[in-house]
Amino acid sequence: MVELGKKLFFDPRLSRSGGMSCNSCHNLSMGGSDNLAASIGDRWQKGGINSPTVLNSSLNIAQFWDGRAKDLKEQAGGPIANPVEMAFTHDLAVAMLETIPGYKQEFTAVFKKDSIDIDQVTTALAAFEETLVTPNSRFDKWLKGDDSAITADELKGYELFKSAGCVACHNGPNVGGASFQKMGVVEAYKTAHTAQGRMDVTKSDQDRFLFKVPTLRNVELTYPYFHDGAAMTLTEAVDTMGKLQLGRTFTAEENAQIVAFLKTLTGDQPKFELPQLPVSGDSTPRPDPFAK
Amino acid sequence: MVELGKKLFFDPRLSRSGGMSCNSCHNLSMGGSDNLAASIGDRWQKGGINSPTVLNSSLNIAQFWDGRAKDLKEQAGGPIANPVEMAFTHDLAVAMLETIPGYKQEFTAVFKKDSIDIDQVTTALAAFEETLVTPNSRFDKWLKGDDSAITADELKGYELFKSAGCVACHNGPNVGGASFQKMGVVEAYKTAHTAQGRMDVTKSDQDRFLFKVPTLRNVELTYPYFHDGAAMTLTEAVDTMGKLQLGRTFTAEENAQIVAFLKTLTGDQPKFELPQLPVSGDSTPRPDPFAK
Repeated sequence: MVELGKKLFFDPRLSRSGGMSCNSCHNLSMGGSDNLAASIGDRWQKGGINSPTVLNSSLNIAQFWDGRAKDLKEQAGGPIANPVEMAFTHDLAVAMLETIPGYKQEFTAVFKKDSIDIDQVTTALAAFEETLVTPNSRFDKWLKGDDSAITADELKGYELFKSAGCVACHNGPNVGGASFQKMGVVEAYKTAHTAQGRMDVTKSDQDRFLFKVPTLRNVELTYPYFHDGAAMTLTEAVDTMGKLQLGRTFTAEENAQIVAFLKTLTGDQPKFELPQLPVSGDSTPRPDPFAK
Repeated sequence: MVELGKKLFFDPRLSRSGGMSCNSCHNLSMGGSDNLAASIGDRWQKGGINSPTVLNSSLNIAQFWDGRAKDLKEQAGGPIANPVEMAFTHDLAVAMLETIPGYKQEFTAVFKKDSIDIDQVTTALAAFEETLVTPNSRFDKWLKGDDSAITADELKGYELFKSAGCVACHNGPNVGGASFQKMGVVEAYKTAHTAQGRMDVTKSDQDRFLFKVPTLRNVELTYPYFHDGAAMTLTEAVDTMGKLQLGRTFTAEENAQIVAFLKTLTGDQPKFELPQLPVSGDSTPRPDPFAK
């Protein structure tokens, strides 16, 4: 199941163009993100929101910035059919997979069914994504009792992270991902971005500008930051968070200490062989990225 | 050197947009190609010519369909700076790499120089690409004496491949890649594609429509075929080649036998862990795919 999901994750044939895979925007060579403020979608459309990392995403309370998918399985179907992202349809994706002998065989072996359906596709994708955890960060080692795993400055950063109140939202196993919180508590967040966050899901005005708190695991790797990708560096993100969420202006030294602490949250990245994708059959539709 | 080249091969920061790497069009999960008739370039521009596979490309007489690069090192700089492809510049690529501490360290360790230059970048890329060979195809095993490595039908296909004359161009260690030949010998090749082939390099009218003979190793994986990507299946490609190059119409049975033989040329695909890319520094420029 996981091996099948891994292949699907890397397979650009799940996009209309044949040129875009899950890994395009959740690049596992780059912290499970694309390191772009807005992702590149089908026909070079601008993505609606900063791609969150797929790493440790199984630990989040829900998926997407607005939490509109309850879990990874529900999430996985989204981008495939999103006209601004992979711009395919579930029906076309499944029909395509049915024509690929190697996939047909693997799906049958895993799901014991006569035919492939989108439920199997998203189940396999989610199973692979659940393996994308990043243990053994230096902070984890420190928590487990290895005093030498972090430096004195990083420890000061951690103390400040707690005392200043960052930990109110960035807490739990994923150092975030556990709740929806308002972007701009003390001071409003200024952005040209139109996302309303959680309100887009609940339709409740109370949920305006509430976003899922991002995980801080591997945050060093997942720049730029915020739902609009506006903060290019950790220094900038920490400064903005301090001011807007906590009403506090960190000194340069404090900021640097918090940033140093945040970099201790980088864990072991997933290690696996680049997958080889099953070859298309003669009847597999040949995608045309430039079709009118 | 090879490990550094592997990272560069997978690094989208070598493109203007930050979203396109060598692996985008020479996808090592898909036979070192993108399986598209024309590749997707910067801002969704249509690529000028079908992306040839990078697999075994070190065995070719020259690089690109028109042979305008004498070797992989010379080739590697092309797409980075091609405005229709990665659309970056060598200067910007090098300046970007200089700001990434992890790269800086690796380049220094490999090249023992104070600064990075494009020559180092292409040298490392070529060193990695030289490792992308695919030994142990069933045909190779048969050549080495393992009679059971190919079937009777595949053997008939091989005999036909020789007797019909395919082998006149598709020969040598790479089963092709050793010469430039005219596309459309007996009969003209009909295409709307504007490439003139070798003539674009030599400016000699004699070289009009001469293209580098593609390798047939892993040809099962590298559809669609020809410089314009017009042949979607091996069946179609064999049929067209027979008619245009040899003046011969293969029967359905003969075609199937040749196709069966061609599929014995699929070798062991390169096996390696997905590389982890060095993280950008605070001063590393953040690419904007949508910049005006």
